[in-house]
Amino acid sequence: MSNLLSIDEIQERISASPFNRWLDLRISLVAVERIVLRCNMKPELVGSPTTQAVHGGVLAALVDCSASFAVISRTGQSVATIDQRVDYHRPGIARELVAEATVLRLGRRLATIDTHICDEAGTLIASGRTLMMQVPHKSKDGDVETS
Amino acid sequence: MSNLLSIDEIQERISASPFNRWLDLRISLVAVERIVLRCNMKPELVGSPTTQAVHGGVLAALVDCSASFAVISRTGQSVATIDQRVDYHRPGIARELVAEATVLRLGRRLATIDTHICDEAGTLIASGRTLMMQVPHKSKDGDVETS
Amino acid sequence: MSNLLSIDEIQERISASPFNRWLDLRISLVAVERIVLRCNMKPELVGSPTTQAVHGGVLAALVDCSASFAVISRTGQSVATIDQRVDYHRPGIARELVAEATVLRLGRRLATIDTHICDEAGTLIASGRTLMMQVPHKSKDGDVETS
Amino acid sequence: MSNLLSIDEIQERISASPFNRWLDLRISLVAVERIVLRCNMKPELVGSPTTQAVHGGVLAALVDCSASFAVISRTGQSVATIDQRVDYHRPGIARELVAEATVLRLGRRLATIDTHICDEAGTLIASGRTLMMQVPHKSKDGDVETS
Repeated sequence: MSNLLSIDEIQERISASPFNRWLDLRISLVAVERIVLRCNMKPELVGSPTTQAVHGGVLAALVDCSASFAVISRTGQSVATIDQRVDYHRPGIARELVAEATVLRLGRRLATIDTHICDEAGTLIASGRTLMMQVPHKSKDGDVETS
Repeated sequence: MSNLLSIDEIQERISASPFNRWLDLRISLVAVERIVLRCNMKPELVGSPTTQAVHGGVLAALVDCSASFAVISRTGQSVATIDQRVDYHRPGIARELVAEATVLRLGRRLATIDTHICDEAGTLIASGRTLMMQVPHKSKDGDVETS
Repeated sequence: MSNLLSIDEIQERISASPFNRWLDLRISLVAVERIVLRCNMKPELVGSPTTQAVHGGVLAALVDCSASFAVISRTGQSVATIDQRVDYHRPGIARELVAEATVLRLGRRLATIDTHICDEAGTLIASGRTLMMQVPHKSKDGDVETS
Repeated sequence: MSNLLSIDEIQERISASPFNRWLDLRISLVAVERIVLRCNMKPELVGSPTTQAVHGGVLAALVDCSASFAVISRTGQSVATIDQRVDYHRPGIARELVAEATVLRLGRRLATIDTHICDEAGTLIASGRTLMMQVPHKSKDGDVETS
C-alpha cells in the first residue's frame, strides 16, 4: 500500500490549520505507515519558567497532528481525534522536537497510531497513542478536522 | 482540608508559564478538590480551517494545566505530569473554554485528576484524566513544572 | 430518558458470558445513566500471593463489563469495547468489589463511560474510562460482544 | 544490560499468583527489554457467547502480567501497576493468545511498557500500555504485587 498524498500536499494541509501554523510544524518524512513531523522550540512554547521545558500541551498537539497525518497521508480523507494518551518520559528540554508517528492499525472507520517524540539528539521525551475516526466525506476544500 | 494557595497566588503561578500566558489562561474558582480555569477562543487556537474548532492540543493543554493546579492549590508543591488521557466528545466550537478539574485521589506521591471542558453554554466538549507526581522539593522561585 | 432493559434482563445477558459467570458478576442497581455491578472476592481472583490483593485484570474486567451494561441498559443494543484506561489507586484488598458505571456521553455510534470500583466499605480501589462502539444490528440471540 | 532472572525463575513468580495460575500463563521468551507470555484459550475465558471471543478483561490481565514481568525480569524487584490503557483492535477469536511486552522506558521509580497481543497466526488482537512503579523493598518471599 502506498501513500496517496505527497509531502508537499501534506505540508499544505498541516499549515491550513492556524494552530499548526503558529507552532510552525514541518513534515520531514512521509513513508508507508509512518511520518516525521518537526517543531522548533521557541520561547512561547515553554511550560516551566525554571527548567524551560516545553509545555505538555505542545507535546500533546504534536502527538495529535502527527497521528492525524500518518493516517491522512495514507487515505487522503479527513480524520477526527476520538481519544489520546500521552506519556511524559522526561522534561522536554530541546531545541527541536521530532515526532514520528506509526499507524498500528488502519481499520475501515477507526485508526490507532503510535507517536514517539524525541529531542534533536534522539532522546525520547514523550510518547502517545491516538484513536482517530476517518471522516468519509472529504470536506470541500480538503481540510482536516483534528478533534 | 483547605486550599493552601489563594486564587491570586494560583493565577500568578499559572501566568509564570509562557505558554499558559500565551493561551491567556485565567483561574476563576478555587474550591476544595476542584478548580475552574477559563480560556477565550482566539484565531490562532483554531485547529480546523473549515469548522473553526479549537485544536485538540489546546484542549490537552487545558487538561494539563487545570489538573496541575487542582493539585498545587491543595499542596503548594510543584507537580510533573506523568501521563494523560483526553477524550474528544464534540468539535470544540466555542467562544470560551471552561475547564473544571477535580482531584479524584491525592496520594503521598501521585495524584489522579479528572477534567471536564465545556463551552460557554455548558456543553461538554472534551474530558481528561491526568496522573501527576508531586515534586517534594519546592523549587527556589515557586514555579511549576508541568510535564 | 429511561432504561430499556430490566435488572433481570440485564443479569441474564451478563451471565450469558462464560467469563462473567465465572466471576459471578451480579447487577444490583440500574438507574438512568448508571449501573452498579458486584463481585465477591474468591481465592482464584488473587493477583498477589503476599498481599492477597485482587489481580489487576479482574478489576479491568469489572470496568469493561460495568461500562458495557451501563450503555446496554439504555439502548438494548450490543456494544464492542474500543479502548479502556484503568487507574489503580490502592491495593485491591476487599471481600466484595462494587463497580459503579456512569455514562458520560452517549453518541450515535460511540459511548464514553466512567467506572469507579470500591471495596465493601466504599473506599476507592480503581477507576476506569471506557470507549465503546454501539453495534447497530442486534445479534440473533441478543448477546453482548464485549471487546 | 542483561536480565537478572532466568525463564524458570520468572515462571515460578508468575505462577505464584493464583489468577495467573488459573489463566495458566506461560512465559516462552525472556530477552533484553522484552518478554513473551502465552495463554491457551479455554471455555471459561469466553466473553461473548455468540462470537466466542475472549473477554476483554482476560486480554487486560495479559497486558498487566506481561508488562510486570518485562520489568521484573530486568530488575528482580516487585512492581505495582499504576495505570493501563488497552486498545481492542479485533475480536479475540484465537486458540492461543501471545503477548509480547517491550520496555519503552525504565526509570528509577517508574517504567512504561508496551504490549502487543496476537493470535496464534500473528494477527494483532489488542495492544496496551502500562505504567508501573517499582517497589524497592523486595517482599520477604519475592512475590510480585501487580496492582
